[in-house]
Amino acid sequence: MAKKRFTTVALALALILVSGIVSAAADNPTVKWHYVSAWDVNNPLFKYDQYIAEKVGKATNGKFSIKVYAAGEMVPAFETFDSVSSGAFQAGSTAPAYQAGLNSAFTLFSTVPLYMSQQDFLNWLYQVDGIGQMNDILKRYKIVAFPNSIFDLEAGFRSHKEIKKVTDFKGMKIRIAPPESQEILRRLGAAPTNVSGGELYDAMQRSIIDAFEFMTPNVDWDLGFQEVAKYWIAPAWYQTACVYYTLVNANAWKALPENYRVIFEEVTKGCVVESTSFMNWQSALGTKEFLDYGVKVSKADEKFWSDMEVVAKKVMEDFASKNPDYAKTLKSQVDYLKTYNLWRELEEPFHSGRITKALPEVKDAWLKK
Amino acid sequence: MAKKRFTTVALALALILVSGIVSAAADNPTVKWHYVSAWDVNNPLFKYDQYIAEKVGKATNGKFSIKVYAAGEMVPAFETFDSVSSGAFQAGSTAPAYQAGLNSAFTLFSTVPLYMSQQDFLNWLYQVDGIGQMNDILKRYKIVAFPNSIFDLEAGFRSHKEIKKVTDFKGMKIRIAPPESQEILRRLGAAPTNVSGGELYDAMQRSIIDAFEFMTPNVDWDLGFQEVAKYWIAPAWYQTACVYYTLVNANAWKALPENYRVIFEEVTKGCVVESTSFMNWQSALGTKEFLDYGVKVSKADEKFWSDMEVVAKKVMEDFASKNPDYAKTLKSQVDYLKTYNLWRELEEPFHSGRITKALPEVKDAWLKK
Repeated sequence: MAKKRFTTVALALALILVSGIVSAAADNPTVKWHYVSAWDVNNPLFKYDQYIAEKVGKATNGKFSIKVYAAGEMVPAFETFDSVSSGAFQAGSTAPAYQAGLNSAFTLFSTVPLYMSQQDFLNWLYQVDGIGQMNDILKRYKIVAFPNSIFDLEAGFRSHKEIKKVTDFKGMKIRIAPPESQEILRRLGAAPTNVSGGELYDAMQRSIIDAFEFMTPNVDWDLGFQEVAKYWIAPAWYQTACVYYTLVNANAWKALPENYRVIFEEVTKGCVVESTSFMNWQSALGTKEFLDYGVKVSKADEKFWSDMEVVAKKVMEDFASKNPDYAKTLKSQVDYLKTYNLWRELEEPFHSGRITKALPEVKDAWLKK
Repeated sequence: MAKKRFTTVALALALILVSGIVSAAADNPTVKWHYVSAWDVNNPLFKYDQYIAEKVGKATNGKFSIKVYAAGEMVPAFETFDSVSSGAFQAGSTAPAYQAGLNSAFTLFSTVPLYMSQQDFLNWLYQVDGIGQMNDILKRYKIVAFPNSIFDLEAGFRSHKEIKKVTDFKGMKIRIAPPESQEILRRLGAAPTNVSGGELYDAMQRSIIDAFEFMTPNVDWDLGFQEVAKYWIAPAWYQTACVYYTLVNANAWKALPENYRVIFEEVTKGCVVESTSFMNWQSALGTKEFLDYGVKVSKADEKFWSDMEVVAKKVMEDFASKNPDYAKTLKSQVDYLKTYNLWRELEEPFHSGRITKALPEVKDAWLKK
């Protein structure tokens, strides 16, 4: 009997630890979460991790409190996913694309080359079950996730030379993050390389690399990239939108009372509105800084875009052919685009996004592996 | 003393009635609001009034309850603004443009011809103080408001004949809602008329009007407009985006505890995410229905758009010259667009929105009247 009671107490204690629930009251029980961000304090995304904590706290009179830790404070940036998956932390944030090593499909919830716009991700995530598909995969890692930001295009390449034709990439050493875009550049004869954000300024100055992409114009400006790159190659075809998300450990989520779940979910949507509009506007302000500084903008013509689309189509089909999760998600996005483009075309010249001419075609066989 | 006590009780009672607060407890006091929608039960916008009530209720375990009434149930559609302003109801919903009779500036918070896109309204409202400017005017009516939907372009004209040149409007009887767009059509020799939504089908069938605009493609489809109009004249230059809002009586807002205010505000942002993506996607599905049905799409060329922009510019300058509120708001939007277009241009061909060539110029004198 004594042993049984001890087990029950231990079990209850274990549940308390993983769920973060300390004591329960009528409407607003006390819940304490620890939230590990993948962003350092200077990254605008960190501000929006804090936004989520602040609004959830205020909505519950401080009873549901979320303590946010910047990257490196508790765990390194790239370990936030594992930390939430293991239950070491109740919540965290990162970019879906950072989990591409676990499953290549993760990139598609975050960014694709030459296809989905900010508006497309908004529509596809919330109305065509993008969030559902994302969480189907995340379930395997005991995680439930919520988009917290849907950014527009990133800035584009900072480069020592102009890029006007797809053959101009030949021989260039370029820092680029998304795996599909790395592969696109490889097929065009460039050498994609990995250089961390903090080393980019120096690597460009010493011409160890010929070009690189990093983030939105405002963040690029703050990092001083106008000083080391003569050309701005726009726009960022390798990332025509970018989604970030907040992760919650599945047990911690299950343990929440329903009203806290509703508050948390609505606050993450509120965060999408605030962070998305913030970043759009900051991108415009950052652009003005670069132009006033005198950076030279280089833009390609329609021939360049059609050529790029053909390469991107083949690369994404190759990715899809190797991973049924990737194939399923890509098919969903392409199906969405085929219908949405009917409307987008009628919206021209006031549209949002791009009518692509060479969409990937997902074969049924790839879905059944 | 007895009299004073009576006064205090009466005052307290009056405050309770206007604020909707019935009893107060620790975290989640009981609050009952009555919310008058400007939309009938078949309008998708009504579903989002219900969304706000549902999420606020769930977030507070039903303690903050909002009862939503469809248009006509308690007050007619066009009286929701007055009903919230007077305090007869704590909250309600409508389109800012419907208040243009009170102050022409209201249209600008809702829709403009040939300028702001969905993304522009998102950015301008939340990051360039569009919401602040809107509430500065609403303060005069004892109202505080929150955007609840930011829709893309409406469908465009349903027409008996094609419209390819600005001179094609000459002599046409056209049903169109926004005052600026009515004036644009008037200057192009058309006769803008007011026909209610329920009478449009019949008016078109009997050729009492030559063309009309109503709403998004999905709503137009549900109303059977494919049966009475051979041509779809796209896109809707008269309304390149459309914002709707939820109104709250200022006293009811003041009486809310802070956590309820935060919940209400985050839920309205959550509503923006859900309703905006819903309507974007439904518009695409509606478009597919029209195209499959065989409606003929008529689209104009770049010359048409440049010509229209010149007329729109003059009309909006004329509106601004007559109302300092209008001038102030228009200047804020134009200043926003001038900066944002720097970035939008670099985003091409993946941009969202339109680089206009003839933006209105607001004179300083108009701001000081």
